[in-house]
Amino acid sequence: MSLLDAVHGPRDLRALSAQQLTQLADEIRAFLIRNVSRTGGHLGPNLGVVELTLALHRVFDSPHDPIIFDTGHQSYVHKIITGRQAGFPTLRQKGGLSGYPERAESPHDWVQNSHATASLSWAEGMAKGFRLTGEDRTVIAVIGDGALTGGMAWEALNNIAVGDDLKLVVVVNDNGRSYTPTVGGLATHLATLRTDRRYEPTLKQIKQRVRSAPLIGGPLYDILHGFKTGVKDVLAPQGMFNDLGLKYIGPIDGHDEAMVERALESAKNFGGPVLVHCITVKGKGFRAAEEDEADRFHAVGLIDSHTGEPLTSSSRRTWTDAFRQHVAEVAAAHPEVVGLTAAMLHPTGLDTFADAFPERVFDVGIAEQHAATSAAGLASTGLHPIVALYASFLNRAFDQVLMDVALHRQGVTFVLDRAGITGPDGPSHHGMWDTSLMPLVPGLHLAAPRDEARLASALETSVGINDAPSAIRYSKDPLPDPLPAVSQVGTVDVLVSHPEARVLLVGYGTLAHTAVAAAHLAGEQGVPVTVVDPVWALPVSEALVELCRDVDLVVTLEDGGVAGGLGAALSLACGQAGVWTPVRNLGVPQQFIPAGTRAEILEDLGLTPAGVARSVVEIALDRAVVRLSAPAPQEPRPSHVTKADTEGR
Amino acid sequence: MSLLDAVHGPRDLRALSAQQLTQLADEIRAFLIRNVSRTGGHLGPNLGVVELTLALHRVFDSPHDPIIFDTGHQSYVHKIITGRQAGFPTLRQKGGLSGYPERAESPHDWVQNSHATASLSWAEGMAKGFRLTGEDRTVIAVIGDGALTGGMAWEALNNIAVGDDLKLVVVVNDNGRSYTPTVGGLATHLATLRTDRRYEPTLKQIKQRVRSAPLIGGPLYDILHGFKTGVKDVLAPQGMFNDLGLKYIGPIDGHDEAMVERALESAKNFGGPVLVHCITVKGKGFRAAEEDEADRFHAVGLIDSHTGEPLTSSSRRTWTDAFRQHVAEVAAAHPEVVGLTAAMLHPTGLDTFADAFPERVFDVGIAEQHAATSAAGLASTGLHPIVALYASFLNRAFDQVLMDVALHRQGVTFVLDRAGITGPDGPSHHGMWDTSLMPLVPGLHLAAPRDEARLASALETSVGINDAPSAIRYSKDPLPDPLPAVSQVGTVDVLVSHPEARVLLVGYGTLAHTAVAAAHLAGEQGVPVTVVDPVWALPVSEALVELCRDVDLVVTLEDGGVAGGLGAALSLACGQAGVWTPVRNLGVPQQFIPAGTRAEILEDLGLTPAGVARSVVEIALDRAVVRLSAPAPQEPRPSHVTKADTEGR
Repeated sequence: MSLLDAVHGPRDLRALSAQQLTQLADEIRAFLIRNVSRTGGHLGPNLGVVELTLALHRVFDSPHDPIIFDTGHQSYVHKIITGRQAGFPTLRQKGGLSGYPERAESPHDWVQNSHATASLSWAEGMAKGFRLTGEDRTVIAVIGDGALTGGMAWEALNNIAVGDDLKLVVVVNDNGRSYTPTVGGLATHLATLRTDRRYEPTLKQIKQRVRSAPLIGGPLYDILHGFKTGVKDVLAPQGMFNDLGLKYIGPIDGHDEAMVERALESAKNFGGPVLVHCITVKGKGFRAAEEDEADRFHAVGLIDSHTGEPLTSSSRRTWTDAFRQHVAEVAAAHPEVVGLTAAMLHPTGLDTFADAFPERVFDVGIAEQHAATSAAGLASTGLHPIVALYASFLNRAFDQVLMDVALHRQGVTFVLDRAGITGPDGPSHHGMWDTSLMPLVPGLHLAAPRDEARLASALETSVGINDAPSAIRYSKDPLPDPLPAVSQVGTVDVLVSHPEARVLLVGYGTLAHTAVAAAHLAGEQGVPVTVVDPVWALPVSEALVELCRDVDLVVTLEDGGVAGGLGAALSLACGQAGVWTPVRNLGVPQQFIPAGTRAEILEDLGLTPAGVARSVVEIALDRAVVRLSAPAPQEPRPSHVTKADTEGR
Repeated sequence: MSLLDAVHGPRDLRALSAQQLTQLADEIRAFLIRNVSRTGGHLGPNLGVVELTLALHRVFDSPHDPIIFDTGHQSYVHKIITGRQAGFPTLRQKGGLSGYPERAESPHDWVQNSHATASLSWAEGMAKGFRLTGEDRTVIAVIGDGALTGGMAWEALNNIAVGDDLKLVVVVNDNGRSYTPTVGGLATHLATLRTDRRYEPTLKQIKQRVRSAPLIGGPLYDILHGFKTGVKDVLAPQGMFNDLGLKYIGPIDGHDEAMVERALESAKNFGGPVLVHCITVKGKGFRAAEEDEADRFHAVGLIDSHTGEPLTSSSRRTWTDAFRQHVAEVAAAHPEVVGLTAAMLHPTGLDTFADAFPERVFDVGIAEQHAATSAAGLASTGLHPIVALYASFLNRAFDQVLMDVALHRQGVTFVLDRAGITGPDGPSHHGMWDTSLMPLVPGLHLAAPRDEARLASALETSVGINDAPSAIRYSKDPLPDPLPAVSQVGTVDVLVSHPEARVLLVGYGTLAHTAVAAAHLAGEQGVPVTVVDPVWALPVSEALVELCRDVDLVVTLEDGGVAGGLGAALSLACGQAGVWTPVRNLGVPQQFIPAGTRAEILEDLGLTPAGVARSVVEIALDRAVVRLSAPAPQEPRPSHVTKADTEGR
């Protein structure tokens, strides 16, 4: 029987010897590689925090002491230790084990937000709360050096620093990379530290002295923190943290479990906020991952558990692939185009552009607010920035898109990848908010292309819009087949034209394909439907409003939140234009959508061709736009006829 | 003729002697006190930056070199110097001189965003842009120590620090207070520095040495920045900035114009990013302001230009006054209630609560993101946080309200003051976005009380909601008179009941009063209208949807952006419930609304009783809900009758 089999909770770690802990760490790494290679998931980050997580659970008493994992994709070891080994075969699947902390799974998971940099604010609030309620608990936040580049970290540290008596430990898991190498002034400082030739001997020296002395207030603390040691100035970013008033311990070798334990014990006993700086290696123990410069093992699909080679390499070209190609072409043709990314150079596909024109592409770190406003600044000098983000992370920059880009009429293009339902990453990662934020931004142009040709053309158009923000959104799907228009009305593409149709179905983005398929199904059920794609969803085109005027019912279909979304923008525009045709909006309900494959979730939400056809037929029957001779799929509901209607004008 | 009369642009400053500059500074202060005491405005901040602004315009070549004022309310001296003296009698009035930088006024104003902390990101983007376009310009950002507590500052500094060759100067205007004294670790450090007994003599020592030596790279730089001086460690927060890789000059006496000039010259010639730290006194030269602990001269109404006493003390109780009283009562009755503010303890009215229970109220600095997530953390320990903000600044925390508070089902109450049209502060300060963000947040409860009784009751209700976020919004208006309900339908208050009404007018918040008055006017014009106030606007109540089902036309009226707002949420709910009654939304159009009094702007937007009555009558005629026997105020537009309608079901 392995040691791992006997671990059912953190308390089972307490009695283990140093040798047993080393063996357990090995078993956990083997477990992770074996399981995650079969399901996909965040492999590299978790291999890097094995000893750190063991130490956390030996020193602190979870869940009494909350351990908060920033972003949360590095919580697999924590899940293994807290009794969730059996769930790993279902990792990130519908109804299975979440890829992030999940409160429904375990009392050990206090926080499940997987947007970066929130952990310090959570921890500060909790520690303040326990101080007020008189509960003797220590709160621990584990945050990567990448997440430290986010502005929330600064806001939180600034507050933590003045909370002298807060029982709060910040563990910086410093592996020098967020997704790709971490950027910025702090990162440069940390990198200097890691590569300093005094680092290794100093770590050894620390190890020798660490056996008995307290780390704060005793001689070792003086060694690390006192003045005139000649070493500490080089090794620690403590000038910064000291200026803020934060106690700092480090750097610690994050793979030396005993050393990490000692540092955490010391921090725990200090009685005030302490920052413990651990140096770890992402992918530790899996050679293919440790040696991979491009950080392809941050998150993996199915891979060979020995070589790390992908087992199922999808040959389908994705939206990201298409963007990668077209943005590089646009950049080559337009010298004024520059690129910005928030620590996502490769995942967003800006890398080819960056390879060709390195001086024109900027990775600003996990810092969406800065990305938007810095882009406004770049635009004010006559350049045209393209800011490539995941749609869900645009939430962080709403105020900046509004007040810096739009109010100042700067031509900035936001490219929103992973828009709409994404899948296995759960509620924080669905890109279902951007379509509700964009209609609030005066003057903004939004394209939701339905195929690659429309993406290329939207990109070309957007870099020519220099007096307003533009946005282009697309999903994480493989690229769909080309879907040509059968005709055009103004700027609106007609995809299915039906002379007898009294119902207009407006399909946005990839769901234009769903709309076309749904229209055929509805037609078979006796409800003829015309389908259009406005291509540019915002501002709402007059041509689209006039099309709405000419029918009896409009149904909109979008891959985004239904409240205040693109369909709602059309409803509003119709109202303002005096168009009385009812507009019904289909989309993602305003709920937190759990993990699952994209296909599973769209099916559950009724956003498949069959689901949409069913809705369209039901709504048309309810409105009495049509009367079916064939049996309807469902009994028509009573029609709620208004007084004016019954007066038979 | 005064010196000031001869200043028509920055170049007129160049030839002035040191003595003349001192005289000019005095004249500018007298000009500011004389003018701002008559119009109201941000007096204290501008009195503090007179010498600093003179030095900026003598050293740099604006507008060739962009000078960006963070937040922007300290740009009056800049306006005086750049040819806008004549505009001051119209300061902050409709069509008059803006209280912030305004690009339409002058090419010297590059940036007009007045939300704090954006300037560093603007400057970084601009400096990068000029580097790429090969233009030799230096970009200057002037930011207060208060704004440095915002997370954007960290994101920007982290990027500025790695831009070795960016021509960028960050001037920290350090007066130790944002609105009230600045809080947080950095602020504590700066405060220590300012009160250190070595500060005064060192400033003098610096002055003596500063005549000729370059400030960077020369002996003086060594004095300030080299090691082993014994002084610099105490005086400068340079550990922090050095760790980031930023050059630092300071601290400088910000009222010594020659010294500031020398520091700026040095920074300008360095050729890379430099931070210049100036110590200033807010309200300098106006005794009443310098000595006022509560910072009442940050922004003033009409005051006596000698004593500083208010001339027009409005005796009308405001919404803020009411909140101040009721939150203190709620806090006394509910020991689990805690308060949070983002540097706005007094302006939001949390001060009385804080005086009574200092350990239960937290000022987190200008840090709305942290405020929201820290509140989630506090809530997770069993407390109920009340986060008091200005509505417009909630934009900064949208992702945190969504992902930390709502996803985690934490009971946090957001109290949004200055909601809706505010007035003289212009487009950045209208609270017209919150009502469009809130409907996107799953589970959120939103109350828009129409009078004090409703506010008190909403507050009492909200602190009992411990599994979801709540929000309560109100305007900067004086409190309106009580407006009792004539009856209730479910949770909906009926304010005007008319047995023959086929039109339902839904009034949210203070506009419920407007709705009542509009209904009377519409009734006089032959269109009977029922008026309701849902009190809790979100989630949309079933009772309200059923009321909509029973009429021929619904018109909603809100003091917020019309796109995706509260009316739109009702439209969506009706659609989802199969209610076909048309719903038309009146509110603030999705545009940037310039300055003016609240009354002027509401008039322009048609959101007065007469304007709303006109809209209601027009819409009712267009829909043919009514046929008027009396002449209509306007020709009815053609009715756009749908096919289903004409079929006369």
